Amino acid sequence: MRLSRFFLPILKENPKEAEIVSHRLMLRAGMLRQEAAGIYAWLPLGHRVLKKIEQIVREEQNRAGAIELLMPTLQLADLWRESGRYDAYGPEMLRISDRHKRELLYGPTNEEMITEIFRAYVKSYKSLPLNLYHIQWKFRDEQRPRFGVMRGREFLMKDAYSFDVDEAAARKSYNRMFVAYLRTFARMGLKAIPMRAETGPIGGDLSHEFIVLAETGESGVYCDRDVLSLPVPDETVDYDGDLTPIIKQWTSVYAATEDVHDAVRYESEVPEANRLHTRGIEVGQIFYFGTKYSDSMKANVAGPDGTDAPIHGGSYGVGVSRLVGAIIEACHDDNGIIWPEEVAPFRVAILNLKQGDAATDAACEQLYKELAAKGVDVLYDDTDQRAGAKFATADLIGIPWQVLVGPKGLADGKIELKRRSDGSRENIALAETVARLAP
Amino acid sequence: MRLSRFFLPILKENPKEAEIVSHRLMLRAGMLRQEAAGIYAWLPLGHRVLKKIEQIVREEQNRAGAIELLMPTLQLADLWRESGRYDAYGPEMLRISDRHKRELLYGPTNEEMITEIFRAYVKSYKSLPLNLYHIQWKFRDEQRPRFGVMRGREFLMKDAYSFDVDEAAARKSYNRMFVAYLRTFARMGLKAIPMRAETGPIGGDLSHEFIVLAETGESGVYCDRDVLSLPVPDETVDYDGDLTPIIKQWTSVYAATEDVHDAVRYESEVPEANRLHTRGIEVGQIFYFGTKYSDSMKANVAGPDGTDAPIHGGSYGVGVSRLVGAIIEACHDDNGIIWPEEVAPFRVAILNLKQGDAATDAACEQLYKELAAKGVDVLYDDTDQRAGAKFATADLIGIPWQVLVGPKGLADGKIELKRRSDGSRENIALAETVARLAP
Repeated sequence: MRLSRFFLPILKENPKEAEIVSHRLMLRAGMLRQEAAGIYAWLPLGHRVLKKIEQIVREEQNRAGAIELLMPTLQLADLWRESGRYDAYGPEMLRISDRHKRELLYGPTNEEMITEIFRAYVKSYKSLPLNLYHIQWKFRDEQRPRFGVMRGREFLMKDAYSFDVDEAAARKSYNRMFVAYLRTFARMGLKAIPMRAETGPIGGDLSHEFIVLAETGESGVYCDRDVLSLPVPDETVDYDGDLTPIIKQWTSVYAATEDVHDAVRYESEVPEANRLHTRGIEVGQIFYFGTKYSDSMKANVAGPDGTDAPIHGGSYGVGVSRLVGAIIEACHDDNGIIWPEEVAPFRVAILNLKQGDAATDAACEQLYKELAAKGVDVLYDDTDQRAGAKFATADLIGIPWQVLVGPKGLADGKIELKRRSDGSRENIALAETVARLAP
Repeated sequence: MRLSRFFLPILKENPKEAEIVSHRLMLRAGMLRQEAAGIYAWLPLGHRVLKKIEQIVREEQNRAGAIELLMPTLQLADLWRESGRYDAYGPEMLRISDRHKRELLYGPTNEEMITEIFRAYVKSYKSLPLNLYHIQWKFRDEQRPRFGVMRGREFLMKDAYSFDVDEAAARKSYNRMFVAYLRTFARMGLKAIPMRAETGPIGGDLSHEFIVLAETGESGVYCDRDVLSLPVPDETVDYDGDLTPIIKQWTSVYAATEDVHDAVRYESEVPEANRLHTRGIEVGQIFYFGTKYSDSMKANVAGPDGTDAPIHGGSYGVGVSRLVGAIIEACHDDNGIIWPEEVAPFRVAILNLKQGDAATDAACEQLYKELAAKGVDVLYDDTDQRAGAKFATADLIGIPWQVLVGPKGLADGKIELKRRSDGSRENIALAETVARLAP
């Protein structure tokens, strides 16, 4: 992408309405624009990151055997009356009346709808296990939306729903999602720690939140530092195999949000030098809720003995749009965002330090075309800004690799390669640049 | 994907509520489930097709220089009061009040919001031309939703918005989208004919609808048969070059919907043998509306002489979810859907004709793994259904290539390759199958 043809409205001033660094940087980097309280337009740079995160979530859901579908944003109120949650949900549910005065709502989550779909088609235990997910916009009418995409009203969520014949099978489905989440967040460059959690309005008796540690997080967390160095399963993990050793390893080390923190256990189990009390951002939560929805909504399947019984369910959420903010909270410095490579809007930026100089323009053009031909996401800053402004923009928007091309280096056949994460710079031959940056 | 692990709820009976073939086939093939009038869940098979169509639309928008962003589904009513369309839009607009009694609406289109974004950031003609698009769910509260995804209420649309300094530049932007649309629909295996159209509530004085010919279409069309054989520009088309010869070629042959049909011109220009009066489905529409929104919403840029002037705009819609239905209307037979390869949910189906037979299972497994490793979208029917049911399912869901694997053929080292589009069958060596089907 040529920057001269892109739409990247960088803000020079720090926006006053932004209370936390991720919101401030998303506005400054031209990623986001507020359209109403808690409702945002994703400008092109922000949209690219959102799509990369969505795709990682999708790939790891698929790898774990979940099947993608897509439910609509609007739902019938009657569906929620069946489960009893229509009245229970309170003012966070956006209730809507259509032209025929039918009661609709903007879905804040989809347990009811997926249960309705399931019961319409699945009649036998032979079709189980089944895990269906979608990645769709949701709405929760927060009393006080704030912190940009971290607590918005219209937000993008991945929500998966598992259906199993009994609790033992359901716990296997739960474990598959637990492992998929470890992989998902690790691929984004995050350390997300699973922590035992309360189940809240979803219900059930087993739940983990996945928490990214950050000083600006919404909840206090207590953990054993050892949890930070536990290994994340690689892509060869066998989701049909026994995942309990992985789950045990991750759940045996103390880690809890303040809601469920057990000070006595913490102090007895965690050596003082290992105790870490900080704050965290929830980026995902998984639930096993047994027959809560299948009882009320009559989602039964015939078991091996021919008797109908309610299925055992779980649901599994990832805050896709929230993750954009969470990653920035975890990955930034005074100059701007430092994207982990897998979620970067562009992997490489080419900075033409003397736009209009024939040799520099030609070298940049050639690099740009060759990198693009190799499938590298590359942003070519071909604007007539001065070099200093180009450096500042590339740092602000956090491109992992910056190729600095100017007449002085080119005279020796060199460019300068800057790595955003540590600021290191290296002179390399122009001719070697593509091989170095193409994956 | 192994069918035994997929979620494909085939219906054996013809659903009574479906009035047209695409709706009937989408329900029967387990692609779609109605959640409320005109509001659908896209089941896994339908979702795969929707995503393929979306991706073709995206690639062709990008190729034509449009930049993707993503606007939210909900909008502030006040934004539409600025343009004067809040009251004008009538009962098709879904109006919503949030917990603080702020007036919102579910966006039926985005001229107002994109103009608001544009005017916030763009101040100079130097930033033009600019074309911003998104692919997002919209809502129009149809009085009588029907025909499945063809006239739903919640629907997926690609809408692009161009901004130019004057009418001449705006017409170039219009032409770029015109050509992009020719390519987009052709890649989906459709013949979509651009026809001069009325502008309706979007406004302006220049518009074309892109119409797929189908007997079940919602509007009558008149055209010269020659339009069916006009060449579609290939991917080397230069969007920075002069596109007017392409536009002239396509607009000089008579083609019009009944709304704007000119019987006198038709009869004088089109030789009787070439006259085609049939019906059509609108799959896209493009508009040039000049300063309609920039006047009312004060979207001005400074021109070369330093004077502010309102920008000249256009908007360009593609009905992404509607296209799924339109393609089925154009591509089906008595046995089911016949997907064009580029939009097929899977390119290849492997039909194990004797599940449980060790040699057949092994041959199927190997084919499945090798095709998947080559990146082919393959559905492996590994269920214990009898062969006849597997044939019927593969035909119903319209997979372009069916690999029939049974003990009899395998004894000679052969499989049977069936092509869905013409029903032709061919015996080929098992060892050659992957090379034949991998692109």
